[in-house]
Amino acid sequence: MMKLRVKLVGFSTGGKPIAVLNKYDAGELGIRSSDRIVIKYGKLELIAITNVSDRLVKKGEIGICEELNHVKLKENTEIDIDVASYPTSLQFIRNKLKGRKLIFEEILAIVKDITNGYLSEIEVAAFVTALHESGLDLDEANSLTLAMVETGKRLQLDKKFIADKHSIGGCAGDKTTLLLVPIIAAAGLTIPKTSSRAITSAGGTADRAECLMPVEIDLDQMKRVVEKTNGCIVWGGSLHLAPADDIFIQVEYPLSIDPLLLPSIMSKKMGVGATHLVIDIPVGRGTKVKTIGDGNMLSKDFIELGKRVGIITQCAITYGEQPIGYTIGPALEARESLEILMRKKTIPDVIDKVTNIAGMLLEMSGRENGKEVALEILKSGKAENKLREIIYEQGGNAEVKPENITVGSYGTDFVSNNAGCVLWMDNIALLELARAAGAPKDKGAGIQLYKKLGDTVKKGEKVFTVYSEKSRKLNRVRKLLEESKPVGTGSRMNMLIHKVKEIPITKRTFILER
Amino acid sequence: MMKLRVKLVGFSTGGKPIAVLNKYDAGELGIRSSDRIVIKYGKLELIAITNVSDRLVKKGEIGICEELNHVKLKENTEIDIDVASYPTSLQFIRNKLKGRKLIFEEILAIVKDITNGYLSEIEVAAFVTALHESGLDLDEANSLTLAMVETGKRLQLDKKFIADKHSIGGCAGDKTTLLLVPIIAAAGLTIPKTSSRAITSAGGTADRAECLMPVEIDLDQMKRVVEKTNGCIVWGGSLHLAPADDIFIQVEYPLSIDPLLLPSIMSKKMGVGATHLVIDIPVGRGTKVKTIGDGNMLSKDFIELGKRVGIITQCAITYGEQPIGYTIGPALEARESLEILMRKKTIPDVIDKVTNIAGMLLEMSGRENGKEVALEILKSGKAENKLREIIYEQGGNAEVKPENITVGSYGTDFVSNNAGCVLWMDNIALLELARAAGAPKDKGAGIQLYKKLGDTVKKGEKVFTVYSEKSRKLNRVRKLLEESKPVGTGSRMNMLIHKVKEIPITKRTFILER
Repeated sequence: MMKLRVKLVGFSTGGKPIAVLNKYDAGELGIRSSDRIVIKYGKLELIAITNVSDRLVKKGEIGICEELNHVKLKENTEIDIDVASYPTSLQFIRNKLKGRKLIFEEILAIVKDITNGYLSEIEVAAFVTALHESGLDLDEANSLTLAMVETGKRLQLDKKFIADKHSIGGCAGDKTTLLLVPIIAAAGLTIPKTSSRAITSAGGTADRAECLMPVEIDLDQMKRVVEKTNGCIVWGGSLHLAPADDIFIQVEYPLSIDPLLLPSIMSKKMGVGATHLVIDIPVGRGTKVKTIGDGNMLSKDFIELGKRVGIITQCAITYGEQPIGYTIGPALEARESLEILMRKKTIPDVIDKVTNIAGMLLEMSGRENGKEVALEILKSGKAENKLREIIYEQGGNAEVKPENITVGSYGTDFVSNNAGCVLWMDNIALLELARAAGAPKDKGAGIQLYKKLGDTVKKGEKVFTVYSEKSRKLNRVRKLLEESKPVGTGSRMNMLIHKVKEIPITKRTFILER
Repeated sequence: MMKLRVKLVGFSTGGKPIAVLNKYDAGELGIRSSDRIVIKYGKLELIAITNVSDRLVKKGEIGICEELNHVKLKENTEIDIDVASYPTSLQFIRNKLKGRKLIFEEILAIVKDITNGYLSEIEVAAFVTALHESGLDLDEANSLTLAMVETGKRLQLDKKFIADKHSIGGCAGDKTTLLLVPIIAAAGLTIPKTSSRAITSAGGTADRAECLMPVEIDLDQMKRVVEKTNGCIVWGGSLHLAPADDIFIQVEYPLSIDPLLLPSIMSKKMGVGATHLVIDIPVGRGTKVKTIGDGNMLSKDFIELGKRVGIITQCAITYGEQPIGYTIGPALEARESLEILMRKKTIPDVIDKVTNIAGMLLEMSGRENGKEVALEILKSGKAENKLREIIYEQGGNAEVKPENITVGSYGTDFVSNNAGCVLWMDNIALLELARAAGAPKDKGAGIQLYKKLGDTVKKGEKVFTVYSEKSRKLNRVRKLLEESKPVGTGSRMNMLIHKVKEIPITKRTFILER
């Protein structure tokens, strides 16, 4: 036990309850940085993670960050502190590091403490790395899914059949959800769709949808929209369905690992009460899953995990070697989707993908000829009307026209420097171009494609245009275009990709989307 | 590129060059927390790790921590910032996470960036966890050793034979070094011994030695002491032989893992120029290594790694089931060591251990009957004289007497509650008691044993006394004594240890000593 005076350090630590001790006092208590202390003031007891400093606080002082001060301690208040034991969950993480499999109660304790900010970045990083290194089996995936649901909020809908759909991501320009939700809702099925914003890509579905309507609505509003229209397209981040996942993502992102893919997706589906689910697994060199074999393996895990958590799950392995449709970037994609729904444009790959996946959900609900039914709903204009209903209920302009969606007015073209055909398109390089142009922050930034795989091109012919809202961002785009080649054109007989004459620095862009 | 105004946030991050950006500006640049930015001001270019906040800095501001401001940027200075690529070393860490073995150049890049603070805690934690999970092979251990030496300072001695000794730790009361260094130095061999302070134990050799003489001296002073006396006992932490190790320890400590054991030890031995080395591996239930077989396995790695880095290495597997000698805690141990060197006391296990290990070093230098030679040096008083020389050269009182070393004046006894003999002694529980009493911070805190394994005890007889400098710390000791049993006494025929009737919370104290 030791008495210290509060010093309000006036900064936020990003979620952790950090208390800063002077080096001398820490030595006196026998504690080091990352040890836990308990702060006592009257009846109040707070657990804090210790940070030891010899500059920030003087002997006899304790630095209190904003996270810790929700109880409004005042400067110079005298408090008691004592050594606290480590959270039990840290012992479970240590057991995982020793190669032990964790049981549900242990995983729940870890996820709870992560959600409450009781574990440090080092500890969360070690947990995520250990899951990545040892691989998590389906029992652990199941436990993690349930633990993330238990620490989050849930949508309660009084329906027996609740459809959902998720793409594991990685394919540029994937606007499937914007078309699929109105088709399914127009067919009379319930689809309370939550989507993510981009993490590493040029736009998540939430970013695209936001060009058409507000997507940051709360759980009560979402419920109202779904009860009125059968569907919705909202940003999952504002719903707190699985708050632990936001913390996992902060760790996974710099490390470029994603061991929590399955629990992260399934917990959010459980959070909205989904009963039937189709997972889209795009396969291609530029996506998360490179081969059809790997896609099948992942499908097995999704279907089995679905069984365990009570969601009937099917997977669609889809072609992901090139972007979906002709646009990349929130505004361009929202516009293309609206044009397809309004039957102003027919984009064959988009329509094929959407109707196939919608068809799977329709057949899971007992209908026959799902794909044909979905196509009919699209062609009849029912899907367009349904989208406009959803837009209206979410607070957007139901009369929105494609030309209302503004695209950046600055553009730069990529032209083919030889004749032949389009040999390959690099999803990741295209995403990087769109990001350099400002996407997803600048919704009007993106790429308009004129050619796709196999299309013939003449020398000097435009292959795509990159649009930006700000001319200075186009400079970054032009620099990237000088350095990398996002689309390969030429004769099919050119064999050499490149020569390696010394140890190369391997660099791979990682796709982390939820 | 973006222009921002400097805001000095006035806090230190503990080594990392953190720049805080407002959420809006970060979005505009398309970056997230943990991304890197480059700060440009005139000809100046600084790389910083980004922290995104929506409270700490306003739009248009950049928060600069103390670590970043060694260049003395002034409040409100306008600077340019741009997105910087991730350090190449992070790509190597990601490769390790993918299961790739790393080559020397890659490991060197990682260790350099860790030393410079360019990698975040998340990234260092993931690297250490991955090393722990996949195990590092001898090639990687070799590379890590060399990289840690290359990023540290080195002691240059003009000697052909430089002896060194290291215990991997875990055995309470291990005062071997305090006796071994004077014996070896008195024998005419050079032994530039650096030691660590306690991390998880009740005292490292540096803490013990500090009761006799100053140990925080710099590399030049150390060189002078060794050139005058053949030996020294100094704290390694002030020498910066392997600065990366301090950062690794910060991560290993909360996680209770230690994959860097071999490189950490060997790099420091290389740093002082050791040519011949004995590693002490105490084996016992309460130490790092539990079985003789495991001790042999570890020996193999030390000997092989020694070969690769040019240090002739032997190992001593020693008995570690109980504390060494009769004392635990810096002052008590320093006093016991001095008493043995002064031939005031004969503590058989301490003398046997010291003379065996000293004998190995003497035989490695070409002498015969090493153990007998070492014992003779001890008995003759030459070792005592040598220690007093070293004490004098390091700035201590060469005339120090055992009674000058003050021990805490508050004490509490542990008495046997049955008759029989001492069945077991729990090293870790004893260390915890000594820590609770104030060790290693309070040098006078510690434990005086009266009984050791196999000794007969009467009911109510004293087994040990815990000493403390502060009476309130004895309360913690008494509480611990109520909760746990550090020494078992009774009949040899009592079989049941304890019953497990529900899932127990496994808790194991981890030994992290360097």
